[in-house]
Amino acid sequence: MSTKVTKEEALDYHRVPNPGKVAIATTTKLETQRDLALAYSPGVAYPCEEIQKNPELAYEFTSKRNLVAVISNGTAVLGLGNIGALASKPVMEGKAVLFKKFAAVDSFDIEVDETDIDKFCEVVKAIAPTFGGINLEDIKAPECFEIERRLVEELNIPIMHDDQHGTAIITSAALINAASMMGKKIEDLKVVVVGAGASAIACSTMYKELGVKNLIMCDSKGVIHKDRTDLNKYKRDFITSTDAVTMEDAFTNADMVLGLSKPGTFTVEHIALMSEEPIVFTLANPTPELFPEDVKSVRPKAIVGTGRSDFPNQVNNVLGFPFIFRGALDVQARKINMPMKMAAAHAIANLAKEPLTADLKALYGDLSYGREYIIPTPFDKRLMVEVSAAVANGAVETGVARVKEFDLETYKAKLALMV
Amino acid sequence: MSTKVTKEEALDYHRVPNPGKVAIATTTKLETQRDLALAYSPGVAYPCEEIQKNPELAYEFTSKRNLVAVISNGTAVLGLGNIGALASKPVMEGKAVLFKKFAAVDSFDIEVDETDIDKFCEVVKAIAPTFGGINLEDIKAPECFEIERRLVEELNIPIMHDDQHGTAIITSAALINAASMMGKKIEDLKVVVVGAGASAIACSTMYKELGVKNLIMCDSKGVIHKDRTDLNKYKRDFITSTDAVTMEDAFTNADMVLGLSKPGTFTVEHIALMSEEPIVFTLANPTPELFPEDVKSVRPKAIVGTGRSDFPNQVNNVLGFPFIFRGALDVQARKINMPMKMAAAHAIANLAKEPLTADLKALYGDLSYGREYIIPTPFDKRLMVEVSAAVANGAVETGVARVKEFDLETYKAKLALMV
Repeated sequence: MSTKVTKEEALDYHRVPNPGKVAIATTTKLETQRDLALAYSPGVAYPCEEIQKNPELAYEFTSKRNLVAVISNGTAVLGLGNIGALASKPVMEGKAVLFKKFAAVDSFDIEVDETDIDKFCEVVKAIAPTFGGINLEDIKAPECFEIERRLVEELNIPIMHDDQHGTAIITSAALINAASMMGKKIEDLKVVVVGAGASAIACSTMYKELGVKNLIMCDSKGVIHKDRTDLNKYKRDFITSTDAVTMEDAFTNADMVLGLSKPGTFTVEHIALMSEEPIVFTLANPTPELFPEDVKSVRPKAIVGTGRSDFPNQVNNVLGFPFIFRGALDVQARKINMPMKMAAAHAIANLAKEPLTADLKALYGDLSYGREYIIPTPFDKRLMVEVSAAVANGAVETGVARVKEFDLETYKAKLALMV
Repeated sequence: MSTKVTKEEALDYHRVPNPGKVAIATTTKLETQRDLALAYSPGVAYPCEEIQKNPELAYEFTSKRNLVAVISNGTAVLGLGNIGALASKPVMEGKAVLFKKFAAVDSFDIEVDETDIDKFCEVVKAIAPTFGGINLEDIKAPECFEIERRLVEELNIPIMHDDQHGTAIITSAALINAASMMGKKIEDLKVVVVGAGASAIACSTMYKELGVKNLIMCDSKGVIHKDRTDLNKYKRDFITSTDAVTMEDAFTNADMVLGLSKPGTFTVEHIALMSEEPIVFTLANPTPELFPEDVKSVRPKAIVGTGRSDFPNQVNNVLGFPFIFRGALDVQARKINMPMKMAAAHAIANLAKEPLTADLKALYGDLSYGREYIIPTPFDKRLMVEVSAAVANGAVETGVARVKEFDLETYKAKLALMV
């Protein structure tokens, strides 16, 4: 399917019929003086008083129940870099649209004109009562790590920096299926991560959690090893335990490479050093580090994934974040912890093993579980049920859900009605 | 029309079918991979780049064009006082609903958990790129004055603290018509303002702008006069130039009283000191300082207004703010200045002189311009055209509009289509 879009098409999409992609909808009747008296003064005083007495009732009487903020300061937007808060707004609105369209989560974008960590956190904490969850977006590393850590610690609503954990969850799902397809144990894989930014570090953290023991991270200066003196504390966590020093050392006999860098950081010559059936994710956007045909020219049995919709195995965060927050909001989770993320990854992985539904076949042709289809496609409506339920259940099982009563099958049935 | 609402009715209104009163709507198609490529990566990069080059293009490519934040810290909510940010959310959502329903302005509520003036302003300034305008709401005095002053000075989008200026504009409209009906010049009126909070001070400022020369303000300690030593700088601006000291002095031969206090601050005995055909606005909510029948027991020819929908002449801010921001947004005004507020007041006053439309007669019965009908009713759809156009025109005439081309009649025709 061609997804080429021209500049004018993209600008028109944002201009017509009204500027932007999101609007506000009202959910209650407001036709008479009496409706006014219910929606506003004097009737509105009652829910205010109830919430003042018991803050948890905000989930019963306000939109907080289903509301996620998409918050950015515009410091690392797509491949555009630090374009500032205002210029990032189309992306953040786009993210809000995806939340709503894919998982019926109301989502509102907030562009914060602040790059200082302390001040940014103060702003987000101050406006946090408004929301039921916060999706941090396109904030540059290393600031994003400290920002997310502090906000998760100091607020009691689900918060996730999607650039980090979204990619980690989706590629973990792909990794689980690819390893199984290759007949390899995750514990035995040699994994190379090329790139050491926010998503690379989150992916590497999650892979270790999945069981990966031999992981070699490379930044623009090469392998992250013990003799490097230029490493920040986040990179230092990934100093290799092997004696690899060069990129060639790293790729030799590697079973998997995750590219989160840019075109040219590794080549087919590097792929030719890998094991016979490697897993190759080249996620640089919009141009991957290597195209699938290049990889297959030297490793025909490779499983290849990219960030693009015009090749098989698109690693797209939209498989994750809408449903992760859907599940977290529905059980009023206090946070999104690793078991919840892991549950999301496994749910995504498992869904790829199911036959395509008729509507998916119409969109994507006849795909079935295999090297060219290791993760679901974005328009797979079953993601809503499977991923949201897995995340909600993970929250309940790890004790971070506020809701007292939760039955997984009942919840899945409810989700199925929302699709 | 009865507008009595019970607690359970009000809570249900906020609970059913979904918690809260606002939701997010998406305005563009998102059904295929190609739509995804337009709404999000890679297509969304184009509007981002355009806005980065020229920030004004945010009005062309994002929802900012039609988006007003309703921002509160919950320190002075309705008559409930300082209930905090979270508990104020139902009111702020209600305000957002009114913006949308009455003037098709997209409006999103932000509850800011911050009472310090400096920090509150920093938060609002940081998130300001998100919005095309800011409606400050339910922030206690005197902090609200400094907060509004700073934000207006430091940001270049329309900002208005509605508790102050909304009431000032609507009561100014009522005052214009009432004085004319009484055959009195505004310059000659003796006006008593009972209350010295945010709205009282804004009303008094606007009345002086309208031409009122003799205005006596009273706070809980009585008349604000030159020998008082307990006055903050905002009250000091209204030290009376007369030698009135007692409330009785103030009311003697007064032509108008504006009550923005609470029941009991003045009585029928005070009304009995006023001129024969006084203007009496008793706006304490939900119980006015005096009911219309009490006023009329001593001054049968009085023109009386309250904040309630079950008596004639309801002073309701919804006659103003939705259309003031509609007009300001449509010309991309940099601020809402006094000429724009004055234009709004005159437009509201003039509309009361027009015969009721059929739909209004169905709602309100057969009202016509006179002592029982000096200002329009909230559901008068002509407010959209008249008030928005007056405000937009005021912005253009005073040079605070960003739009280069503006034709009043063309704009009014466009507004008429939106009603």
